[in-house]
Amino acid sequence: MSTISEKIFSRASGTRAKANDFVIADVDYAMAHDGTSILAVRSFREMGTEKVWNPDRIVVPFDHLTPANTDTTAALQKDIREWLHAQGIKNFYDVGEGICHQLLPEKGFALPGKLIVGADSHSCTYGAFGAFGTGVGATDMAEIFSTGKLWFKVPESISITAEGKLGKHVYAKDLTLRIIGTLGVAGATYKAAEFYGSTIESLSVSGRMTLCNMAIEMGAKAGIVPPDKKTFDYLKGRTEETYEPVYADEDAHYAQEYHFAASELEPQVACPHNVDNVRGISELSPTKIDQAFIGTCTNGRLEDLEVAASILKGEKVAVRTLVIPASREVFLEAARKGVIETLLEAGATIGTPGCGPCLGGHMGVIAKDEVCISTANRNFKGRMGTGGFIYLASPATAAASAITGEITSPADI
Amino acid sequence: MSTISEKIFSRASGTRAKANDFVIADVDYAMAHDGTSILAVRSFREMGTEKVWNPDRIVVPFDHLTPANTDTTAALQKDIREWLHAQGIKNFYDVGEGICHQLLPEKGFALPGKLIVGADSHSCTYGAFGAFGTGVGATDMAEIFSTGKLWFKVPESISITAEGKLGKHVYAKDLTLRIIGTLGVAGATYKAAEFYGSTIESLSVSGRMTLCNMAIEMGAKAGIVPPDKKTFDYLKGRTEETYEPVYADEDAHYAQEYHFAASELEPQVACPHNVDNVRGISELSPTKIDQAFIGTCTNGRLEDLEVAASILKGEKVAVRTLVIPASREVFLEAARKGVIETLLEAGATIGTPGCGPCLGGHMGVIAKDEVCISTANRNFKGRMGTGGFIYLASPATAAASAITGEITSPADI
Repeated sequence: MSTISEKIFSRASGTRAKANDFVIADVDYAMAHDGTSILAVRSFREMGTEKVWNPDRIVVPFDHLTPANTDTTAALQKDIREWLHAQGIKNFYDVGEGICHQLLPEKGFALPGKLIVGADSHSCTYGAFGAFGTGVGATDMAEIFSTGKLWFKVPESISITAEGKLGKHVYAKDLTLRIIGTLGVAGATYKAAEFYGSTIESLSVSGRMTLCNMAIEMGAKAGIVPPDKKTFDYLKGRTEETYEPVYADEDAHYAQEYHFAASELEPQVACPHNVDNVRGISELSPTKIDQAFIGTCTNGRLEDLEVAASILKGEKVAVRTLVIPASREVFLEAARKGVIETLLEAGATIGTPGCGPCLGGHMGVIAKDEVCISTANRNFKGRMGTGGFIYLASPATAAASAITGEITSPADI
Repeated sequence: MSTISEKIFSRASGTRAKANDFVIADVDYAMAHDGTSILAVRSFREMGTEKVWNPDRIVVPFDHLTPANTDTTAALQKDIREWLHAQGIKNFYDVGEGICHQLLPEKGFALPGKLIVGADSHSCTYGAFGAFGTGVGATDMAEIFSTGKLWFKVPESISITAEGKLGKHVYAKDLTLRIIGTLGVAGATYKAAEFYGSTIESLSVSGRMTLCNMAIEMGAKAGIVPPDKKTFDYLKGRTEETYEPVYADEDAHYAQEYHFAASELEPQVACPHNVDNVRGISELSPTKIDQAFIGTCTNGRLEDLEVAASILKGEKVAVRTLVIPASREVFLEAARKGVIETLLEAGATIGTPGCGPCLGGHMGVIAKDEVCISTANRNFKGRMGTGGFIYLASPATAAASAITGEITSPADI
């Protein structure tokens, strides 16, 4: 009678963990990126520990401000590189390798049944592989660096079931936005969301990553898709580590159960300035845009770029259109398949793999009153530039909008 | 008995212009980029002129801080876009189209015999097409925006002749560095350098652009290669404008004449912190690097990326290696030819067309004490990050160095 989370925390803590228990758990993999490793390492140094608990269990991708945008960033990144070298941490991914949440799956760290903690709120992405992935602050990460352990309150779980087939121009992102729009930004606070149903089963690994990536946007501690053949196929050749898929018992307890009918969905848009301000695209009044951004840990994968390219092929964008592959692997595959060529021909701009302008640090900050349609996961006020307006949508909707210069359904191209 | 410069200024001023004359000349094309258009437009507004003299003669590429890196940049770029729209200036190239000095040739504005003035010091690049290209400050540019005219002191000319065949691993950049190393950073101050000889004739258009691009690094007002079939072939289909190639008279007067023997050259490196601190690569003591940067208006063309890819093919880079195509056209051709794929496979990172980290504004700033080998044109103290060290070299030498992690001749790979 256990949920996936209870089972993972039971193994990780060596207890029979139930929801609301406080446990001390062994972390399987700990992740910090350039932004948070700086703070985590500072705390780690203050703690006085000499060596990290296990260098092979720590993964550090540089993605937030890469290539370095300022003197300060360059200096901080240099310091972290030297620290990683001194600590013997080899799972380091420097400038241009990609976004942390893309790299942990690609490099075989996001495995079924594992407890993976990242110093980044979107670490819930790893739930797409049946892991318990969750984000912590940098000082908690210092504790993990030091001991490999962290305390947790085992979350209660909710189940979210989606049944039916997504329509032609409707994607995992649309389903995700609809779920968040329905539950609200605090609708799953500190809960683990388990995803079920034929729609979820039909999603690619990439689509499941989009879904789990945004679990935090309804407050969830984790979002988890039970692993299946697609999961195992994806992981093949990416790791030599053994892993044990974990599934919920039939009589597991869920604090809430939600149901969604996928076939009824049209493309969805999260309007400024909250992720749960979600409307069907047909409900939107005409909305001009200044920029389209396709990328991020939410929607910067090969599948996303391919969808965008299929819409942009033979067309010309009407606004600044930034496409940033989520990783070197994505970029390389997209180059091999002619996707990059198609995007460039349509007038899109390609950027170095990383977070790009998602967090407003560089590479496409928008001006006051400018409007950006973005495939990212957050549209908070000021996130991509002070005074800007962010609409969140699927890569298909972003590409369609880039062509017309206003928010447009891919069905209308 | 006139030099190329005297002939161009004679036509442009309607006088019989001789060296050291002061003339008021009609400018054929005026260029300002995102960095300088801001200042030029501010001055233009202060002058009180309502409309620019001729919107079709003004070209504005955004390249220096694109995609926008901060709120301030985003706001300034928005303001310029609105101004361009209001002025009816259609020769505008937004984020990701490429570097100004690459775009003016590609889009057919850098034409033989023309007087082209840019609000950027490397506007001498256009001399590769037999134009008189030169840089001015933003307030002078405002005067041009307003009247289409500017005063000039007609420069004296010098002739630089290079004879012989460049060796296997030696390129236009090596010849350029050798010339600057010999003449010194003030060796051609306010002179127009005309380039002659079999080596120059053998250079591709791309190589001639490298050469003329760096004329300012020896203080020259312009660097000019007499146009030939290669020039005319390159321009075919890029413009409908007529142009009149201009050549020097046999008895033209040159203030100095320099001669270089190309076949004796080895790869050259300009060491910190001056462009004329040039040594043959064999004279360098071992020099570790932290970053390699291949790109810029000096060496970010297809030919440059192809050379880099030919060296990197099947190898892996040992340091952060940023490759930034000089324009969308370059990026697209490189994608089509598999060059992007090869570079990504070798571990290089590709960035959005533009100036990249050349001027230390974003996209690869180096930290204190870090060393970057760069294909750019300037290695001044602090240019790419406070406390950093920049070595200038050819794309081949940069690529070879990326593989070994220290400055390395392409002959040794």
